[in-house]
Parts: sequence; C-alpha cells; structure tokens
Amino acid sequence: MLVAEVHRRRLRLIQKPQPVPRRDEALIRVRLAGICNTDIELLRGYHRFGGVPGHEFVGQVENCPEARWLGERVVGEINLACSRCDFCRRNLPRHCRRRTVLGILNKDGAFAEYITLPVQNLHRVPDSVSDQAAVSVEPLAAACEILEQVAIDRRTRVAVVGDGKLAQLIGRVLKTTGATVTMIGKHPNKLRLAREAGLETKLGRDVPKDWMAALDVVVEATGSATGMPLALRLVRPRGTVVWKSTFHGTAQFDAAPLVVNEITVVGSRCGPFERAIDLLRRKKVDPLPLVERTFPLSEAPRAIAFAQRPGVLKVLLAP
Amino acid sequence: MLVAEVHRRRLRLIQKPQPVPRRDEALIRVRLAGICNTDIELLRGYHRFGGVPGHEFVGQVENCPEARWLGERVVGEINLACSRCDFCRRNLPRHCRRRTVLGILNKDGAFAEYITLPVQNLHRVPDSVSDQAAVSVEPLAAACEILEQVAIDRRTRVAVVGDGKLAQLIGRVLKTTGATVTMIGKHPNKLRLAREAGLETKLGRDVPKDWMAALDVVVEATGSATGMPLALRLVRPRGTVVWKSTFHGTAQFDAAPLVVNEITVVGSRCGPFERAIDLLRRKKVDPLPLVERTFPLSEAPRAIAFAQRPGVLKVLLAP
Repeated sequence: MLVAEVHRRRLRLIQKPQPVPRRDEALIRVRLAGICNTDIELLRGYHRFGGVPGHEFVGQVENCPEARWLGERVVGEINLACSRCDFCRRNLPRHCRRRTVLGILNKDGAFAEYITLPVQNLHRVPDSVSDQAAVSVEPLAAACEILEQVAIDRRTRVAVVGDGKLAQLIGRVLKTTGATVTMIGKHPNKLRLAREAGLETKLGRDVPKDWMAALDVVVEATGSATGMPLALRLVRPRGTVVWKSTFHGTAQFDAAPLVVNEITVVGSRCGPFERAIDLLRRKKVDPLPLVERTFPLSEAPRAIAFAQRPGVLKVLLAP
Repeated sequence: MLVAEVHRRRLRLIQKPQPVPRRDEALIRVRLAGICNTDIELLRGYHRFGGVPGHEFVGQVENCPEARWLGERVVGEINLACSRCDFCRRNLPRHCRRRTVLGILNKDGAFAEYITLPVQNLHRVPDSVSDQAAVSVEPLAAACEILEQVAIDRRTRVAVVGDGKLAQLIGRVLKTTGATVTMIGKHPNKLRLAREAGLETKLGRDVPKDWMAALDVVVEATGSATGMPLALRLVRPRGTVVWKSTFHGTAQFDAAPLVVNEITVVGSRCGPFERAIDLLRRKKVDPLPLVERTFPLSEAPRAIAFAQRPGVLKVLLAP
C-alpha cells in the first residue's frame, strides 16, 4: 500500500505491506486524514519520529475480531494503552506509561491507505456527520478537553491566543458554553473566519491595554513558543492559562508574573471523542469552513508543504 | 534613624528621617527582620528596586490611630491595597492593581529601625510565640498558601524541590497534612535539618528513576530557574507543580511534558497570616532550627553577604 513517511525530516512516498492487525485490533481503510501542526513539528524533529505520521482520520472497518464493527465508518482515539500500568488502572489510558500513539509515537499513522487500531479505540461516526467533518473529531476532542479541565460559563472572560487550525476549533468549542470568546491572532483572513463563527477577534497588536491582567481564562494555542508571554500578561491574578501548544524546542518566558499573580497553567492534550462527536451531530460546531484543500495521498509531500504556507488552515489527504 | 538601602545593586547603611504614618497607618518599631531570597534577588535587579528592603519582620506598635494596637507586638501583611480596584472588590487585596509591597515595591521595608504599615495589615503575635519565631510568619504564610491552592492529604505523594529557607518551611507546613513529604535538595546539611523535622529527603542526583512521572504534587522552591525541569519530570500526568520561586530573569524549559502530561502549574506567592500564626501558636512548625545567625542592623551589608554563602539558611537583623 501507499504511505507517506517521515525520512530525514522530509515526507516521502513509499510502498509498504498492508499492516497486520493484532488480536484486539481492527484493520481500517483510511477515507480521509487531516494534517495537524504536530505533523509539521514531527518533521522538525519532535519525538524524533521516523514512521508514518497522521493521527486525524476517518475510515472504514474492513477487518475486525468483533463482527459488529465490520463496514462501519469510524474515527479512533490515538493513544494505545497497555491497560495494566498504574495510569491505565486509574482510568487514565490516554496517559498510559507504555502507550504508543497513532502517527506520533511508535505506531504508524493515517497518511496511508490502511491503519490498524485496537477496537476499544474506535468510535462510530453518525450518518449525519460527513467524512470532511468527522476527520476533525480528534482535534475537536482535544479542544473539548479544555471544558473537562476548566470551569467556563457565560460570565467567564475568555481569550484564545492563536488563530490556526486548533485555535479555531477551540474558540468554537468554548463558545458553546455561552461565554464571550475573543480570538487574538495575527492573520486577518483567519480572524474573519472566526468572526463568521460568532467569535470576537483582535489582532495581537490591537489588544487594548486594559485587557492586561483582566481575563479569567486564556488558551494558548499558537502551536509555537511565542504565545505564552502574551497569555501570561492577559490573564488576571488567580486566573487560568490553558497551554495547548506542543512543539519541538524549549519555551522561555519571565516566570515572575506567573508566580506573583498566582496564575494556574494547565497543560492540555487529547480529549473526549464522545463529546466531540456529539458537537458535530448536534451541529454545534462546523469545522468545514476550516478545510482549505484536499490532496490525494500520492501528493502528500506537496500537501504538507502547502499546509505550512502562511494563512493556510486545514489540509486533508484522501488515500 | 538607621536603615539599610539598596543602592546600585549593593546594600548600604544610611540615616533617614523616621517615616511618618499616613492616616490609616501605624508606626512600628522593628524588633527583628528576616533576610529572604527575594531581598537577594532585589540586589540582582528584581523589580529594579531602589529603597529599603525587608518584608519579614516582627515589631512593636509605637503610634497608631487605633489605641488598642498601641504597644502590641505585631507582624504585618506586606501588600498595601487600595481597597477600590477590581481585585480589592473581589476580596483579593494581595493582588490589588495599585498595591505597594513592603520592602519590595514602592514602600520602604524593615531593614530599618521603624516602618509604617496600614492598621488593617497588622496581626497580633501571641505571647507564647517568640520574636525569633514570629519573624518567620510572612514566609510561613507563603508556605501555607499552598494548602489553600492544592488539595493535599495523607495519601498525597509530595516532594519539595529545593532545600533553602522557604523550601524548609514549605516541607514542614505540608507535613502537617499527614502527607509523606520528601525534600529534594543538594546540600547534605540542609537535608539533615529537614530530616530532623520529620521530612524524607533525597539528594537531587539520588532521585530514583521510578519516581519520575510518579508524584502527585511537586513544589518548586529552589529560588532560581533551575528547579522547574526536575519538578516537571517528577510530577505524574494530571499532577500539580506549585511554583514558588521568584527570581530576576527568565525561566527556560521544555514545555512538551507539561502539555503532553496535562500537568497543572500553580503560581503561589503570599499567604494567610492567621494560618501561619496558628501553626506557631500550636507548635506545629518550629522555624527556630532554621535561624543561622542574627546580626545588628548596623552590620546589614555583612549580614546579606553572609546570607548568600552556600549552605546558610535564615539570617536575621536586629535594629
């Protein structure tokens, strides 16, 4: 089968044997895969990854130990847990000590015609949710994770720093709480998309001085090390910064405001698929305006180059 | 009166007029003042401070608009609040937007024969608590702040990274919850003191590998930028790091573990004086073994040099 793999910090197309599912795994034909900022970071050396990337997908079960899944359209949780370590026993399988992670850590991902995934990781996609929407379930779940970690309601003053793919989903998810959510970015075209989804927006350089140390919750979702200093300036004393960006390299910032203002910083990664699927089913979030372009898998190297162009949002691969 | 002031990053002795209390303030004769790591950071440029440092003190009220305070032995909260801004109205006077801070921010401190402080900042010292113990109320309150921010009980696995003055108080305060507390430091003599107070101890280089990603709560209290990477490695997924160190400069660390392991980092500064005084009154914490030496105020420059020697814990000044 055709796959795109990371080789010497580039994406290259090769032929590989179709993966053989383990006893508890399903074989899934990938219908669509999404390119995430993490995939771009993998090319930059994050996790020293050397296999097939791709952790956002929607696919069809072609082979499965449990017959009821055969032929189903599915999305899948990306963390493969051992179910025996202390974190698995605490019901934190996404933090399993021995986990592999689809397309990120020791498990080939969805920039391929086929993947395998444990049956327990699968979630059925409702008929009313299109492939183009379903492929966003994984990042949408990551956005929903914030609601599991931080109390947000209609009176909470919230900002999202960043205007990229994940930031856009986060803004839309947080808005479902009734809160007024402001996206602070640097790309006018991306901020326009956010306004069309009902978010308030500000260019970073236009943030008014009286917003400093005034917001209850600030989500840092720039995907780089640059957003944290602004997030720490915006949040009020005893407020919360949610840190969403994973990137290759170190973060550097003045720690004093964090300590002096007694700010809480919450790291936030993967989230609940059920909640994300439910938001799509009830049409509470529409990810389709974020899709920029779909490339065939055979053009994956061109697609990931395109995804890195300034201003480009979600790029999909169709095997 | 004699004061020690910060001048061109050194401490110098000068004569200054006795301060004149404002309408709501008491005039307090300083009985003892403590040298804190923050004072040393002020000399290094923290806050670009240029007045009289000293925010840990016990004193006697010599003049006061409220007669009941006259002659009382007191300690005092260090944040002077405006009582009108949004944070004061939210009952967060320690975070007042227009605050001055005794010996730290636009308010002369206790390396002096006299200070003034608003009456609302004062707390009476019980007769059973000595001056040498009472002078630790301010840092002890800062240690107690952690208990207001993070749930800790006897089943919580806790470590304190750092073995200095504040770390020692923090270890003793956290132990009052019944939790097993391990102090991780690099000075065998300081760790011995901690063991004498009932804490577990480890040299940083001896921390076993299976402690990594295993602790529920890790308090970073090294007073420098160096402790954070170890704290982030020690804490378990979804665990909490309390960040206590304020220092001049920036912190730099790999942010990925914080995000990937969904760690919560809580900045923590000043704390509740009542709780600290109560711990001293009930003899739950004994700060006296931490007192290294008391210098007369007239030897303040020598005292602060002594306080910076490796291995030295609390140094006091007696005006």
